[in-house]
Amino acid sequence: MMHADFVEKLFDVKGKVAVITGATGALGKAVAVGYGLAGMKVFVTGRSESKCSALCDELKAQGIESAYAIGDPAVEADVIKVVAGAVAAFGEINVLVTAAGYNHAQPIIEQDLTEWKKIMDSDVQGTWLFCKYVGQQMIQQGKGGKVILVSSARSKMGMAGYTGYATAKAGIDLMAQSLACEWTAKHHINVNTINPTVFRSDLTEWMFDPESEVYKNFLKRLPIGRLGEPEDFVGPCIFLASSASDFMTGANVAVEGGYWAN
Amino acid sequence: MMHADFVEKLFDVKGKVAVITGATGALGKAVAVGYGLAGMKVFVTGRSESKCSALCDELKAQGIESAYAIGDPAVEADVIKVVAGAVAAFGEINVLVTAAGYNHAQPIIEQDLTEWKKIMDSDVQGTWLFCKYVGQQMIQQGKGGKVILVSSARSKMGMAGYTGYATAKAGIDLMAQSLACEWTAKHHINVNTINPTVFRSDLTEWMFDPESEVYKNFLKRLPIGRLGEPEDFVGPCIFLASSASDFMTGANVAVEGGYWAN
Amino acid sequence: MMHADFVEKLFDVKGKVAVITGATGALGKAVAVGYGLAGMKVFVTGRSESKCSALCDELKAQGIESAYAIGDPAVEADVIKVVAGAVAAFGEINVLVTAAGYNHAQPIIEQDLTEWKKIMDSDVQGTWLFCKYVGQQMIQQGKGGKVILVSSARSKMGMAGYTGYATAKAGIDLMAQSLACEWTAKHHINVNTINPTVFRSDLTEWMFDPESEVYKNFLKRLPIGRLGEPEDFVGPCIFLASSASDFMTGANVAVEGGYWAN
Amino acid sequence: MMHADFVEKLFDVKGKVAVITGATGALGKAVAVGYGLAGMKVFVTGRSESKCSALCDELKAQGIESAYAIGDPAVEADVIKVVAGAVAAFGEINVLVTAAGYNHAQPIIEQDLTEWKKIMDSDVQGTWLFCKYVGQQMIQQGKGGKVILVSSARSKMGMAGYTGYATAKAGIDLMAQSLACEWTAKHHINVNTINPTVFRSDLTEWMFDPESEVYKNFLKRLPIGRLGEPEDFVGPCIFLASSASDFMTGANVAVEGGYWAN
Repeated sequence: MMHADFVEKLFDVKGKVAVITGATGALGKAVAVGYGLAGMKVFVTGRSESKCSALCDELKAQGIESAYAIGDPAVEADVIKVVAGAVAAFGEINVLVTAAGYNHAQPIIEQDLTEWKKIMDSDVQGTWLFCKYVGQQMIQQGKGGKVILVSSARSKMGMAGYTGYATAKAGIDLMAQSLACEWTAKHHINVNTINPTVFRSDLTEWMFDPESEVYKNFLKRLPIGRLGEPEDFVGPCIFLASSASDFMTGANVAVEGGYWAN
Repeated sequence: MMHADFVEKLFDVKGKVAVITGATGALGKAVAVGYGLAGMKVFVTGRSESKCSALCDELKAQGIESAYAIGDPAVEADVIKVVAGAVAAFGEINVLVTAAGYNHAQPIIEQDLTEWKKIMDSDVQGTWLFCKYVGQQMIQQGKGGKVILVSSARSKMGMAGYTGYATAKAGIDLMAQSLACEWTAKHHINVNTINPTVFRSDLTEWMFDPESEVYKNFLKRLPIGRLGEPEDFVGPCIFLASSASDFMTGANVAVEGGYWAN
Repeated sequence: MMHADFVEKLFDVKGKVAVITGATGALGKAVAVGYGLAGMKVFVTGRSESKCSALCDELKAQGIESAYAIGDPAVEADVIKVVAGAVAAFGEINVLVTAAGYNHAQPIIEQDLTEWKKIMDSDVQGTWLFCKYVGQQMIQQGKGGKVILVSSARSKMGMAGYTGYATAKAGIDLMAQSLACEWTAKHHINVNTINPTVFRSDLTEWMFDPESEVYKNFLKRLPIGRLGEPEDFVGPCIFLASSASDFMTGANVAVEGGYWAN
Repeated sequence: MMHADFVEKLFDVKGKVAVITGATGALGKAVAVGYGLAGMKVFVTGRSESKCSALCDELKAQGIESAYAIGDPAVEADVIKVVAGAVAAFGEINVLVTAAGYNHAQPIIEQDLTEWKKIMDSDVQGTWLFCKYVGQQMIQQGKGGKVILVSSARSKMGMAGYTGYATAKAGIDLMAQSLACEWTAKHHINVNTINPTVFRSDLTEWMFDPESEVYKNFLKRLPIGRLGEPEDFVGPCIFLASSASDFMTGANVAVEGGYWAN
């Protein structure tokens, strides 16, 4: 028999501790603010001291309990330090959101190996390292957890110039699926991806000009009739951090306005 | 700038009117109770007068505003009547959940055409008819809406004996994707599927014996380490009915314990 | 140790008997001619006596052993008759290609149930019936077989107006997957789909005008840079009928110029 | 109008030059022999001088025109050298098959970053480098080409211990899709993957014991009722190298006994 308090608590994430990578980017920041406003303790990380610091100030100004450590997600020592920092700050980690990423679209025959590696390292290795060290922490805690890997609608659909980015994001989808097999039954850690299409950010702002060809062409592919706003990202991230999604693991959750649907 | 009330309202579905088909089955009932406890007005339908009536009594006993009309989802006149009934009862329809379905696993060469048709009509035609008539209503209302089609993990993975059921459920996934293309940009109606694996019900109870071979074999395929309970279904259904999922349409949302992930 | 004659025989389909539905359509006819020129015996079927008869004349003019029976693939008695006709003509059936299909794109709220049913019956029921009765025959023969269901690139990507066609074709993909589970290990019958994008035919000729918007928009989605010609369909159909594909079953083979890839 | 010689030539690959990586492994060798017996000139590569040399001797003993260069696919200078060697030996490259790969299954929290990187470098970077340098060569030649990336059934289905391998193979699928977008229309280079399940090799021989639990469990997931033999791999590889597959690009071709189908 289901009771009212079961339903009330479905999306309640108050007091949970989240580590958010790429938190100074548009999506990462939206998650940080959204989680914070939902009552979570937010540990943010990025490569820039000034940006991380400013973000924490902003979060605190909204009454959000937050802290940060800087680091490069692709560098193992940094990841170890960030994870330790989160535990030091808040005692435990309950949710991980990997929103760090990098792209540089180039035809393969023009792209240097070092540049391609930078994409792969930022996107795949950084995600893997955070999964490894946060996973380790969650397993030690013995209380389960929620891991949300930010992938991309590009993870299942290629694009010219994207032998780095699409490759990396496809890898992230399967990393989540493999971790689900590895962790969920045994450790009650759910691992899912969110797969966004283009969301507004400093980097993508130019695509949002409704008069531009890029925008018009994009809209032909988007059943929802618009590109994403950072706010659109918050609901799915809270959902996947909450008990409402307890039966979901290894899922690649499309938050892409229907890009995959047509 | 995101504010606390934005986050607070993300999952708030209070006052919305939902039509739920197959409401007397285990999943449909879970949705009806869950929606009701979340403050929605619930219009339920099924083929049995006594079961629908009993369900409404139960709902009302929990303080849920509810009403019902009986009907066969595969019969056009019935669907028209049910939709009209919902509008008569609550003035509008904001959410549709099609949880009605039927299966009879048989090898194709042993299955009569009439039996196969029964599966297809119950699962696909019934879903199509409710989409058509509720969609029509939502378009007339001009306020958008949320349509949630209950598909199955079987929609993307075949099984011996399932040339009816898997075929039907695959069709439902693409019906959702097509309706997303048709409706979302123009009418702000989001259409998504939920794809469950086996959930506990009168029909599946026998699979839940942990000593049985069926159960053990199933668990090898389920990263989450258990089968589904009706309660597991509620969170995803509220999520997809709420503004938290406003940027999702045409998605096939896996609520299957990771069945697709391995 | 692999020998030259193993490789030589990989694609050798000489003497095999194929039943081809929708044989008077562009794709069906291409398969009929292609199979025939590859040395197969070709039993064709369609609804029009005059078209079937003319096709057989054409086939015979090219030295192809062929015969036909007319019938509606959605009508059980017709399917039984056609299958019996093929056995009567050639003694056995080794390959089935279901190329019959129908579409009528309409918004769901404008489409009559009868019209939607016509799509579903032509596409799904017709395919199911041929699978059932040809499968029965192949099982009785005890020599295995190859079943090739013509699905569509639309089977995994929706479109406005396509709640019939996309739904139906998605169903066909899963019918193949289910039949693979049901038949391949036990009866050595491989069941796969081919999923084409738009191919040239009387019905699609208008899309091939390189100056038209439809064509230009389509090409943006087609990595291969052109639409399909019936000849493009022959190679994959011979491949799936030959021993070269003996380890493939339940596969949805994209013959769509990369439509799914971007 | 289709003619007999069109069909005869569909699978004719005589005289084409193929570069095959990982050629001393079971799948790579099967492709080398199969291609050679089909009349192709075969340039093989691997890391072991003695194995490459022995393979070439074997190929020549069967009358196959072949040559080799040793190299590590993950090392850019080696790849450049191998590609140059192939051009020096045979004047051009028409087909690339990347069959090199590596796996080491380990739980993520037990796997060292260096070991994970080895998987990623061997599988993804090696593939990327060969695509880049062979692609460059094919583009210069101006005659199109066929690129076949050996992925895995694991590319779309995770597994405990596979955060390296499944991640890498998923990446390869999308690399192919992206290259299809980049190359096919412009340069007539088709890029597809083949996605095998377990095939017999020195490394997998232990799985083929029909009495073992591993084997029995595997078979429950394989509609085809057996694991793969290297010979099973040859037909799909010739198909994708031939004009029979000219309309296919960006496809992930399941050669996995139906593993994805259930």
